[in-house]
Amino acid sequence: MQKEKIILAYSGGLDTSIILSWLKENYNCDVIAVCCNAGQREDYEAIEKKAYATGASKAYILDIQEEFVKDFIWPTLKAGAIYENDYLLGTSMARPLMAKKLVEIAEAEDAYIIAHGCTGKGNDQVRFESTIKALNPAIRIIAPWRTWNMESREDLIEYATSHNIPIAQTAEKIYSRDENIWHISHEGGNLENPWNEHKDDIHILSVPVEQAPDTPTLVEIGFEQGIPVTVNGEKLSDVQILESLNTMGSANGVGTIDIIENRLVGMKSRGVYETPGGTILYKAHSALEKLILDRDTMQYKNIVAQKYAQLVYDGLWYTPVREAIAAFVNTTQQDVTGTVKMKLYKGSAIPVASKSPYSLYSEEYATFSKDEVYNQSDAEGFINLFSLPLKIRAMQKQQQSGEQKGSHTLEKKILKGGDFIR
Amino acid sequence: MQKEKIILAYSGGLDTSIILSWLKENYNCDVIAVCCNAGQREDYEAIEKKAYATGASKAYILDIQEEFVKDFIWPTLKAGAIYENDYLLGTSMARPLMAKKLVEIAEAEDAYIIAHGCTGKGNDQVRFESTIKALNPAIRIIAPWRTWNMESREDLIEYATSHNIPIAQTAEKIYSRDENIWHISHEGGNLENPWNEHKDDIHILSVPVEQAPDTPTLVEIGFEQGIPVTVNGEKLSDVQILESLNTMGSANGVGTIDIIENRLVGMKSRGVYETPGGTILYKAHSALEKLILDRDTMQYKNIVAQKYAQLVYDGLWYTPVREAIAAFVNTTQQDVTGTVKMKLYKGSAIPVASKSPYSLYSEEYATFSKDEVYNQSDAEGFINLFSLPLKIRAMQKQQQSGEQKGSHTLEKKILKGGDFIR
Amino acid sequence: MQKEKIILAYSGGLDTSIILSWLKENYNCDVIAVCCNAGQREDYEAIEKKAYATGASKAYILDIQEEFVKDFIWPTLKAGAIYENDYLLGTSMARPLMAKKLVEIAEAEDAYIIAHGCTGKGNDQVRFESTIKALNPAIRIIAPWRTWNMESREDLIEYATSHNIPIAQTAEKIYSRDENIWHISHEGGNLENPWNEHKDDIHILSVPVEQAPDTPTLVEIGFEQGIPVTVNGEKLSDVQILESLNTMGSANGVGTIDIIENRLVGMKSRGVYETPGGTILYKAHSALEKLILDRDTMQYKNIVAQKYAQLVYDGLWYTPVREAIAAFVNTTQQDVTGTVKMKLYKGSAIPVASKSPYSLYSEEYATFSKDEVYNQSDAEGFINLFSLPLKIRAMQKQQQSGEQKGSHTLEKKILKGGDFIR
Amino acid sequence: MQKEKIILAYSGGLDTSIILSWLKENYNCDVIAVCCNAGQREDYEAIEKKAYATGASKAYILDIQEEFVKDFIWPTLKAGAIYENDYLLGTSMARPLMAKKLVEIAEAEDAYIIAHGCTGKGNDQVRFESTIKALNPAIRIIAPWRTWNMESREDLIEYATSHNIPIAQTAEKIYSRDENIWHISHEGGNLENPWNEHKDDIHILSVPVEQAPDTPTLVEIGFEQGIPVTVNGEKLSDVQILESLNTMGSANGVGTIDIIENRLVGMKSRGVYETPGGTILYKAHSALEKLILDRDTMQYKNIVAQKYAQLVYDGLWYTPVREAIAAFVNTTQQDVTGTVKMKLYKGSAIPVASKSPYSLYSEEYATFSKDEVYNQSDAEGFINLFSLPLKIRAMQKQQQSGEQKGSHTLEKKILKGGDFIR
Repeated sequence: MQKEKIILAYSGGLDTSIILSWLKENYNCDVIAVCCNAGQREDYEAIEKKAYATGASKAYILDIQEEFVKDFIWPTLKAGAIYENDYLLGTSMARPLMAKKLVEIAEAEDAYIIAHGCTGKGNDQVRFESTIKALNPAIRIIAPWRTWNMESREDLIEYATSHNIPIAQTAEKIYSRDENIWHISHEGGNLENPWNEHKDDIHILSVPVEQAPDTPTLVEIGFEQGIPVTVNGEKLSDVQILESLNTMGSANGVGTIDIIENRLVGMKSRGVYETPGGTILYKAHSALEKLILDRDTMQYKNIVAQKYAQLVYDGLWYTPVREAIAAFVNTTQQDVTGTVKMKLYKGSAIPVASKSPYSLYSEEYATFSKDEVYNQSDAEGFINLFSLPLKIRAMQKQQQSGEQKGSHTLEKKILKGGDFIR
Repeated sequence: MQKEKIILAYSGGLDTSIILSWLKENYNCDVIAVCCNAGQREDYEAIEKKAYATGASKAYILDIQEEFVKDFIWPTLKAGAIYENDYLLGTSMARPLMAKKLVEIAEAEDAYIIAHGCTGKGNDQVRFESTIKALNPAIRIIAPWRTWNMESREDLIEYATSHNIPIAQTAEKIYSRDENIWHISHEGGNLENPWNEHKDDIHILSVPVEQAPDTPTLVEIGFEQGIPVTVNGEKLSDVQILESLNTMGSANGVGTIDIIENRLVGMKSRGVYETPGGTILYKAHSALEKLILDRDTMQYKNIVAQKYAQLVYDGLWYTPVREAIAAFVNTTQQDVTGTVKMKLYKGSAIPVASKSPYSLYSEEYATFSKDEVYNQSDAEGFINLFSLPLKIRAMQKQQQSGEQKGSHTLEKKILKGGDFIR
Repeated sequence: MQKEKIILAYSGGLDTSIILSWLKENYNCDVIAVCCNAGQREDYEAIEKKAYATGASKAYILDIQEEFVKDFIWPTLKAGAIYENDYLLGTSMARPLMAKKLVEIAEAEDAYIIAHGCTGKGNDQVRFESTIKALNPAIRIIAPWRTWNMESREDLIEYATSHNIPIAQTAEKIYSRDENIWHISHEGGNLENPWNEHKDDIHILSVPVEQAPDTPTLVEIGFEQGIPVTVNGEKLSDVQILESLNTMGSANGVGTIDIIENRLVGMKSRGVYETPGGTILYKAHSALEKLILDRDTMQYKNIVAQKYAQLVYDGLWYTPVREAIAAFVNTTQQDVTGTVKMKLYKGSAIPVASKSPYSLYSEEYATFSKDEVYNQSDAEGFINLFSLPLKIRAMQKQQQSGEQKGSHTLEKKILKGGDFIR
Repeated sequence: MQKEKIILAYSGGLDTSIILSWLKENYNCDVIAVCCNAGQREDYEAIEKKAYATGASKAYILDIQEEFVKDFIWPTLKAGAIYENDYLLGTSMARPLMAKKLVEIAEAEDAYIIAHGCTGKGNDQVRFESTIKALNPAIRIIAPWRTWNMESREDLIEYATSHNIPIAQTAEKIYSRDENIWHISHEGGNLENPWNEHKDDIHILSVPVEQAPDTPTLVEIGFEQGIPVTVNGEKLSDVQILESLNTMGSANGVGTIDIIENRLVGMKSRGVYETPGGTILYKAHSALEKLILDRDTMQYKNIVAQKYAQLVYDGLWYTPVREAIAAFVNTTQQDVTGTVKMKLYKGSAIPVASKSPYSLYSEEYATFSKDEVYNQSDAEGFINLFSLPLKIRAMQKQQQSGEQKGSHTLEKKILKGGDFIR
């Protein structure tokens, strides 16, 4: 029987190294290792070498940073999507792109199987597999963590030792982490008791707030149609913008959250996320929208953003409803062009000033005094009609209770009030 | 003709003092001044004296703090209602209660007219009048700012001088402010240009973040059914809880926002709000909910919260839809009992730990390893059905494009992939 | 080893008879058969006998009609919940109640296992099992259709023959059906091609529209707080009301729909549903709400109704979010008291007249002419503020395009227009 | 002083004829009469003559039918927008287009004033004026019904007689009507008491249901990307399609509703609407979507449709949020191509069959038996994770109540159930 080719989502870490070896042991197959550089800081040459050393027939190292930022992060930023009011979706956005790359390579390699190293209790398995099924339903998926009988880190290390798989430093891995250009996540360790505070040593991307400088950093971010394009007036590439804000945010301890979240697969988990540049961008973008979007658009967009966040979190990127909502969002962003000044200080990213050629704010209308557009006497008519349903209902109640009491005092009262002033 | 009685919402400030006088000048009436103490720090005895001195036939000073906290703030906190993702509704919640008090006094005094000092460009006129109409539609409303021909602070001062109305310190009033136990708002002055940063001297309730202490404050807040009941383990009254957290929040510079907001009456305005204790409570309450509410309840509640916020902002407190949503919210809060530890530091209020007898978080389910409740192999079935609509759609697209291309390679690929592994 | 007790959801039909036998064959167990009478027209004595004849150690026949109508149908009617705009949730509402009965009997019998005859491709398995897990998570579930290797009706008949299980009339079962007091559903047969029209002989509960009488039937339905209480002025029990309207609706061919629906488990299916009385009630209830609910309440309730429908369809009855929405709904129904006159004719149920002591409709306000409550000149102020955001935006656009063109004509035009009339 | 030009929305009826005359009497102006043919059946030559005879300096007769159907009706149909679950928005859609035409003519004529004949209690004034302000905020609006002192039909007739304005047949106008190619509305007369049934003689566009033929009409409607393009296989223009379906719908009494609705301006009104072709199209379009849209897209679109309907009803056509939602809708319609067979009978329009190259319905997946795509054993995993939050919550409750009772029976029961079957 002909050997099959299996495309493996490969990180170079312990788990996927073992999976590489395990696949070859359990299937009559060649394994093509695919490692996506989404901005996590790794030695990619070393990863490539390790893949071959562990038995890969081929290894791809793909730099997906630009595509990640342009096609996944900016659309989600424009939507203002935040999962459960806190999580900026760093891992969720990356998974569909990685899965897309796996499918593309599978198709190029004429392969029909993709393997990944996600565990059976997390969201990532769903994000990977939903994307694969949406992009090429003919592809089969192998998820060893759901089928083999290794259950713990100790089992893995034993397997690695017995199969001559090189193991990185023996230092115990305290946290389970996922990093990319947008964020890093931390799970496990002492976080697993929600009554524990997380420790300072958890920080990777940014300083703990107490260690941030005593002087604020001010930065001006320029947006065009909802997308950041300049930092302090300088035009930068998509990736550069994020890197630049990551640097500033990290130094000021901006963007760390520590939350309990509801996983798609039904249980709660606790995680710490560092998203320094992303946090600055979300706050700046929102401040700019406040200057530009009318009330109804803003309020409906806020509702739609919750659906968008849920879709992204759930790995439903390549779905008709996400694409339709993205079309909604893009339409709202046509005028979201302008500049926001942010103050970064001791963990906070605060919009302190904003301007835009499309601003709907007008000093003239907002102030106390008379202006040309707004006629204060209009307010009476507005209020009278705005509250007419309440008034009609109240009159109906009064009439009814009046009738029930068999009394006429109410009617008298109504007439008396009505007589005096109209 | 008999004299009418007019109930005046009276603050003791320049505007309502002039209105008091103006009403007596323009109507054949007695004016009953009603001043509500919602927690703003004033000399209420002086206000009462001033009311009589300015010509009131009667003056009421009402302490509404407890009712404000229990019946307006707590329900809104439980709802998690935040207007346009930032504003904690401090003024919006107070207005319907004040209007209710005015109606109660009108009814007790057998009066049919209420006057208020809101301008014709703001939200408060709508909040006052909607409430009055909802509670007693027979009452007529006088809003002098919409009808008289005074247009500026200078006009007022001239009127005051010519009518012997005592004017407070001549110091120019830079900002227009509204204070209560929950917050203080600031509008006007240099805020009217959104590209200006607000100045440190705007702060009334709290220190600017840079002036906050270098050491964090930790505080534990206990909730029962969504309502805060203890601070650092000590059982306090509703008002005391808020006062206690206000003190801590203020010292740490917590809870200042500086935003552009969409007023109900159609224009944008810029405001700075200080809500020290309230900000701590919102964050703590939200963190506790994350421990207790299931995903679907939390996500739907987040959507409903936006409607609730809009209703409160718009002065639609006494409406069937707000009452119905409050019933929804109360049902969700039945198990929201537990404790959250908050860290206050340099403007931030960060939940760092939480616990609850109703916690749905379980270390056992969340972790990587096998457990009794969760069977990892269930995940495959879950994903297969969860993503079935995507898969069916993708197959439909493949079939169609295959047909269009007149090719059979795709079908072959599907079969081949399908043959290998199920 | 001690024999286990298995509680079986038993209908007396072929499938559950075989399951009964199969359970005894495959487990060391006694089987307790539970048959719920939710209004399907069956010979329940015969079912009981058949259960014992097929090997049940005990058989329960439970009349759940009243509980079904009061605790499941009325709340869903009050919510106005309709799945995908057409389906009145007849089967969806019944399943959680049946599952609850199974749990109650399991607990009373000190049993820990429930078996059901739902297939692995339908919604009902989810509804049963979600309910069981929500009510008693200790109970284990056996779903033979997902595990045994019988795959077709032929397999079943062979099993029945070889195990001496009595088979009903040999007439081929064309449609898969589910009946209760609210509706009957039909699936399968020629319905499986969506381009086929369903045939007249599919009807069980009602006549095809062409066979309905040429003269309309008029009926008046009285509601109290959203619940139907009288038919043509006569006070009836919950079950009687539904039976009475079923009779009228059936005779007039009311309430048949033929739809493609999205199952929870990911695929589309086609079904015909007959819901004669239910259709009348939904239309009457909605007409009454139009007379009584204010615009904002009605519109928000319509949105909430969609979530409620989805929850009920998905078997998520015993969930915090459904209970919270039910609290919302109940609050909205406080005044939904009144009478609706319905005209039933050739398949249609049309509300033709309505009245209520809580009606917010007022001839006086609605008509063209002047009235006491509504001042037509208020409309100008209302419109001016209502459309102010549009106007500000349009002015901003004009200014900008004017600037771009370097022209002043626009400004002139604005001024000129503005000069003429205010 | 130079004469101003006033653009008048002119219908040729009594009201706008009088307004024409009244404007000339009260302003130093020329009046340009603009009559839009949106499909209402009128003698447009006679209207033009009458305009000049009544004193217009110029008269425009514009055929806006095609633009109305393509740019207003089809987008609303695609959205599936229905106001308060019943009203198909016939008048609401027409007003913004008419107002747009008025603005275009004003700009072409170098005029800055538009006058209309809407009353001060209806929605149309808002729709006209919002549109005008959104398209050209420099234009001033005159709404005589809100300002003059004529209050009744009698006043109008007296004015007409005294000003030599020709009055149409003296037959008393019972109902207030608005007609276009999509629908006709009826208000007033005996409708003003909601307990009155409407009379048969109200019908203009369609026969009362009892007078419809005893034999059904079957019609096949073809859609492309959500837009109807063929009737019974014949490709027709947009206007022809609607006319063709109007003819069939009218003959079968399809599309009459009689409802209480909530006006934007705060009160309820009662109206009868005939929308024969439109009703057929809405039902056909919805049936086609059921075949093509996945569950999540359909359900979210249903929610969005309610917002769209409200925006259209409220005259907010030219707003950013409506445009953004339209972009959402268009994205969802990309595959909504196919054919629906409708049965028209005695007032009903029933989809009886449907087909599409993009159908996601598959007989293979839907049926009972095994298939290649769906593995029934997946269902167990799906259900286990789908209901995991319920199970965890239930276990938490059991544990707690167990602890409270100080009993261990529960734990025993859990273990016992758990031991037996996994």
